[in-house]
Amino acid sequence: MLGKYVDLTREKQPLIHNITNYVTVNDVANIILACGASPIMADEVDEVKAITAICNGLNINIGTLNHRTIESMMIAGNEARRLNHVVLLDPVGAGASSLRTRTAKHILEEIEPDVVRGNISEIKALANQSGKARGVDADVGDAVSASNLDQSIAFLKAFSAETGSIVVATGAIDLVCSADEAFVIYNGRAEMSRITGTGCQLSGMMTAFVSAAPKAERLYAAAAAVCTMGAAGEIAYAHLAPYEGNATYCRRIIDAVDHMDSKTLDQEAKYERQ
Amino acid sequence: MLGKYVDLTREKQPLIHNITNYVTVNDVANIILACGASPIMADEVDEVKAITAICNGLNINIGTLNHRTIESMMIAGNEARRLNHVVLLDPVGAGASSLRTRTAKHILEEIEPDVVRGNISEIKALANQSGKARGVDADVGDAVSASNLDQSIAFLKAFSAETGSIVVATGAIDLVCSADEAFVIYNGRAEMSRITGTGCQLSGMMTAFVSAAPKAERLYAAAAAVCTMGAAGEIAYAHLAPYEGNATYCRRIIDAVDHMDSKTLDQEAKYERQ
Amino acid sequence: MLGKYVDLTREKQPLIHNITNYVTVNDVANIILACGASPIMADEVDEVKAITAICNGLNINIGTLNHRTIESMMIAGNEARRLNHVVLLDPVGAGASSLRTRTAKHILEEIEPDVVRGNISEIKALANQSGKARGVDADVGDAVSASNLDQSIAFLKAFSAETGSIVVATGAIDLVCSADEAFVIYNGRAEMSRITGTGCQLSGMMTAFVSAAPKAERLYAAAAAVCTMGAAGEIAYAHLAPYEGNATYCRRIIDAVDHMDSKTLDQEAKYERQ
Repeated sequence: MLGKYVDLTREKQPLIHNITNYVTVNDVANIILACGASPIMADEVDEVKAITAICNGLNINIGTLNHRTIESMMIAGNEARRLNHVVLLDPVGAGASSLRTRTAKHILEEIEPDVVRGNISEIKALANQSGKARGVDADVGDAVSASNLDQSIAFLKAFSAETGSIVVATGAIDLVCSADEAFVIYNGRAEMSRITGTGCQLSGMMTAFVSAAPKAERLYAAAAAVCTMGAAGEIAYAHLAPYEGNATYCRRIIDAVDHMDSKTLDQEAKYERQ
Repeated sequence: MLGKYVDLTREKQPLIHNITNYVTVNDVANIILACGASPIMADEVDEVKAITAICNGLNINIGTLNHRTIESMMIAGNEARRLNHVVLLDPVGAGASSLRTRTAKHILEEIEPDVVRGNISEIKALANQSGKARGVDADVGDAVSASNLDQSIAFLKAFSAETGSIVVATGAIDLVCSADEAFVIYNGRAEMSRITGTGCQLSGMMTAFVSAAPKAERLYAAAAAVCTMGAAGEIAYAHLAPYEGNATYCRRIIDAVDHMDSKTLDQEAKYERQ
Repeated sequence: MLGKYVDLTREKQPLIHNITNYVTVNDVANIILACGASPIMADEVDEVKAITAICNGLNINIGTLNHRTIESMMIAGNEARRLNHVVLLDPVGAGASSLRTRTAKHILEEIEPDVVRGNISEIKALANQSGKARGVDADVGDAVSASNLDQSIAFLKAFSAETGSIVVATGAIDLVCSADEAFVIYNGRAEMSRITGTGCQLSGMMTAFVSAAPKAERLYAAAAAVCTMGAAGEIAYAHLAPYEGNATYCRRIIDAVDHMDSKTLDQEAKYERQ
């Protein structure tokens, strides 16, 4: 059922404007290409409005924000909203500094992104909960697990109701929530957390999936992107030689996305709906 | 005949100053090393003049331009000109925003780069033709093909005559033109367009090849760089496992450049002269 | 004996704040993860104090410095000092421009980093010696060799005594020096110099190793990081297929760090103490 969003993205080839961090930007560009979309990166105040206008979706990632790029995020975000383009916010490191928390909240309130994707600590920081980021990683105490699953889903659904955004919290268990629906996704491998930027990559690909989908199906498209990333992580891991590690694993995950099709995703996707 | 420029670059080991985008900069640095040259990246207004002065060539790429780096491009470009260093302009995304088009034209007019390398839509945007960029990709309607080849060559030769630059338009068919000569190059694979930054990489390597060549042979050195990139793309593709995709392919192309020698290039280069 | 610092880093999982260049930043993040630590990159003046405060160590790399990031380096450096966090300075390109030389000296004097790691030309530039950088590479005339080994060690010990920093000069032979002790390290391969950023990667990993070690053992932890990088380079090289080159080699070195353990390092480390 989610596989169709893989095909749809390849068919529609959405053009995605990314204002993103310089740490993982190359991988973000390659995974957007791998899923059949096209990336463009632009963060200068004087051109972001024009760039966003020719695109289909906007991916805002605050990973290495500065005052110049924050201004660009706001300008591009407002223009994307005006044009009814999809906007995704990845609040990298929200909770780690007040600048990040403040900026992410400001984008959330003023731009009202269609999707917010982060780790659970970042989402909690946005929701004024006890989210204690460990830098750009989620705090162990915040982790979604079998024992707090119902409570976590209730929190994310409530946050979705409050903000109007699809809310995606990824980790060992991934949750993709609207105000009244939730996907609980079990794809992926723990080793993915030893690669920098799997979250950033997922946000870029998710912007593409959601931009390619009909408006009423955005929740499913977001869930399909999460399953694609996780399934790619599983497929890629199976191809690793014993001496290969996190750097090669990163390449192979993008490779697996490059080969992903609807049939494979429908076979590999592991999720429940609540 | 073009293979000698591979050897020459390895022998001369030119030092290349790059003011380039943060998306593909790591691959640009690695391919410059792979072809036997040395890269240095520096974009601060207060040091670009000094950095360019110790280098042999300057690669200006506007892929993630901002007002600070635009000023640096002009300062470095003027200093490189004054010192008779090779200057290459890669007008990434010209046509996608007026800032990019304007900046690329300003560099073209004030710095008079020795080489301009872009996709055909970017070149058309510089020439005030109907170039309609699709973000950083060429528009399908602009593509150079068998049916419009003569017309495309005539356009690029005229643009070279007007600007004094060697003009290189890469795509399925690559064209390397001076005012009165053209190389039509058939190396490369369609899958290369699914990797971010093959164009940026080529521009970096081309700056190295042209910087290492005698002034009268710059057109041939530029053509040799295009053939090297394309042949590396073919060699790399042959080494891909069935499950490998665009991310690994990117690495393998740089690897193939690392192994390129004059004999291999002379065997693999596929071009006509017009 | 040095292997224990591999285990200690994996056990302590230090969080490392990096203000570093955009060329090699992704590899720096992945190698910090590979050695068991966690990276965070942040360079905005308004947040670097907060980010450094939640971290265990600070890695300052001037590879693509600009006035905004120089200010951030000073703020973060002073805060890290105040909190007794480990600070490492990588003076990329010191000697190549007066801005770089001046900035690196200013950081050295005002922040008094615990460790300075560069190539021998960069260290000489900081010490007002005849260091003649060739861009970001050491000058051949400066190279540490068997014939000038005693003299090089004496110079670095004296510079360590003068600055109070552990001084690390890497190249074909690596030297890790305090005022009265020196490790002369023979791990690594010449092919590593054809990869962009092996020095930057080492600096990031070294910040993690030193941050995880007891204060009295920082010299050993720094030496362990050098041996880990060199041994990883040897292990990775053994896994390269004949057609693989510098781009794949870069991935495989990080992979080998990901697999490094104390036993392997104790077997593979090749050094003398003087």
